[in-house]
Amino acid sequence: MTDLIYEQPLNEKIRSYLRLEYLAEQLQANLDHDHQHRCFYPLFSLCELTERCDYRGEVLKDLDRQLFALSKWQSLPAINSEEVEAYIAKLSVAREVLQVSERPGQQIKQDRFLAALRQRFNMPGASCNFDLPQLHFWLAKSWEVRQAEYQEWMSQFACLLSPINLLLDLTRQTTEYNQLQATAGFYQGDSEQALSLIRVKLAAEQGCYPTISGHKNRYAIHFVQFDKQKHSDQSIQFELATCP
Amino acid sequence: MTDLIYEQPLNEKIRSYLRLEYLAEQLQANLDHDHQHRCFYPLFSLCELTERCDYRGEVLKDLDRQLFALSKWQSLPAINSEEVEAYIAKLSVAREVLQVSERPGQQIKQDRFLAALRQRFNMPGASCNFDLPQLHFWLAKSWEVRQAEYQEWMSQFACLLSPINLLLDLTRQTTEYNQLQATAGFYQGDSEQALSLIRVKLAAEQGCYPTISGHKNRYAIHFVQFDKQKHSDQSIQFELATCP
Repeated sequence: MTDLIYEQPLNEKIRSYLRLEYLAEQLQANLDHDHQHRCFYPLFSLCELTERCDYRGEVLKDLDRQLFALSKWQSLPAINSEEVEAYIAKLSVAREVLQVSERPGQQIKQDRFLAALRQRFNMPGASCNFDLPQLHFWLAKSWEVRQAEYQEWMSQFACLLSPINLLLDLTRQTTEYNQLQATAGFYQGDSEQALSLIRVKLAAEQGCYPTISGHKNRYAIHFVQFDKQKHSDQSIQFELATCP
Repeated sequence: MTDLIYEQPLNEKIRSYLRLEYLAEQLQANLDHDHQHRCFYPLFSLCELTERCDYRGEVLKDLDRQLFALSKWQSLPAINSEEVEAYIAKLSVAREVLQVSERPGQQIKQDRFLAALRQRFNMPGASCNFDLPQLHFWLAKSWEVRQAEYQEWMSQFACLLSPINLLLDLTRQTTEYNQLQATAGFYQGDSEQALSLIRVKLAAEQGCYPTISGHKNRYAIHFVQFDKQKHSDQSIQFELATCP
């Protein structure tokens, strides 16, 4: 059995965080393995997103909110205070780093090699040898050399991506999964507390994936059969965690 | 010494061929190794290009032209007639296949899974878990299964990509490389015969790449130092092949 986890953000903030987290994972995957020119896609996506929106203010506010909440928890008797302290330490470091950082992606913007690549990367098939001879040259460097350069580019986003990683980690940890069943491929629920993230765990062997919609206090889950690309009419066993 | 080959098309036809060849190589690389969701970039680029332009007519004309030329060569005494015959056979097969094929990419257009992915693939970071749960499901399939599906998608472009491969092969084989030297990072040349493709072979160790421009009878090559991203003022040893 392969359990897959599907997540759906219920507010714009978590939506942005998940998108940035996804790109952070892609960067890491491209640092771990040589994917040739493919490594530039998540890098340029991150440039694009961080140019459109300066996430630093929101993330700083969120770090403060979490640090305040954790400091209150610390005094509760049922709490594992060591774990809470460890989080407080990590969040504090991330906060300090982010507060003094310049806007992520600024240095990459000034790199002439990356700027030339980025211009063409969204055009279909437009990163040929003759479109970008400099890319052809770069790809002939050894993987070790390219890896070091990639790490340098990645590192410019770390001040933003590390705290987001921590904040999502805390969000996910708030809630345990419950065993549930969808009738005729459908499930809906509500919550008095405003929710930020819906998580659905599902065995791949059931042959379907969930499409989740919702907003704050209500959510609906439709299960879609992958092979037929249409809504399932079956009973589906799944696990659900709804995170505030 | 690592020799790198840089190519510059001097007409629109060869430009298209090189672009399609580049995408064909990317498809093959994604079939040989599991690059996860990255495999969709060249597939969707091919869909895009073949929707914009139906290359079949031009390729068929080109195949006829080459078959005619080869049949004339066959009678010349200095020609390796076995090799020519082999090419005639391959071109004839490719021609037959292409003539009866439907426009490449039509079936992919009707695939609902691929259509959903394609819509989002050009947006930065927009192929997250929550954007495309079906992609998340698909990526959890075994590599063998995904590979077989990918091969099936690829195969729909084979009728177009195979003859282009042969035609470019013939173009490149017309001309041998000559040893040359660029003075102060610059070289220009001309040709009475209309040219279609310029090829520059250069040792990576020289630390520079060529930017080539030109049209039919004239071409210019500027060598750019990679590290400084500016024109070299050095003497550069390189090899050049100018293909009609």
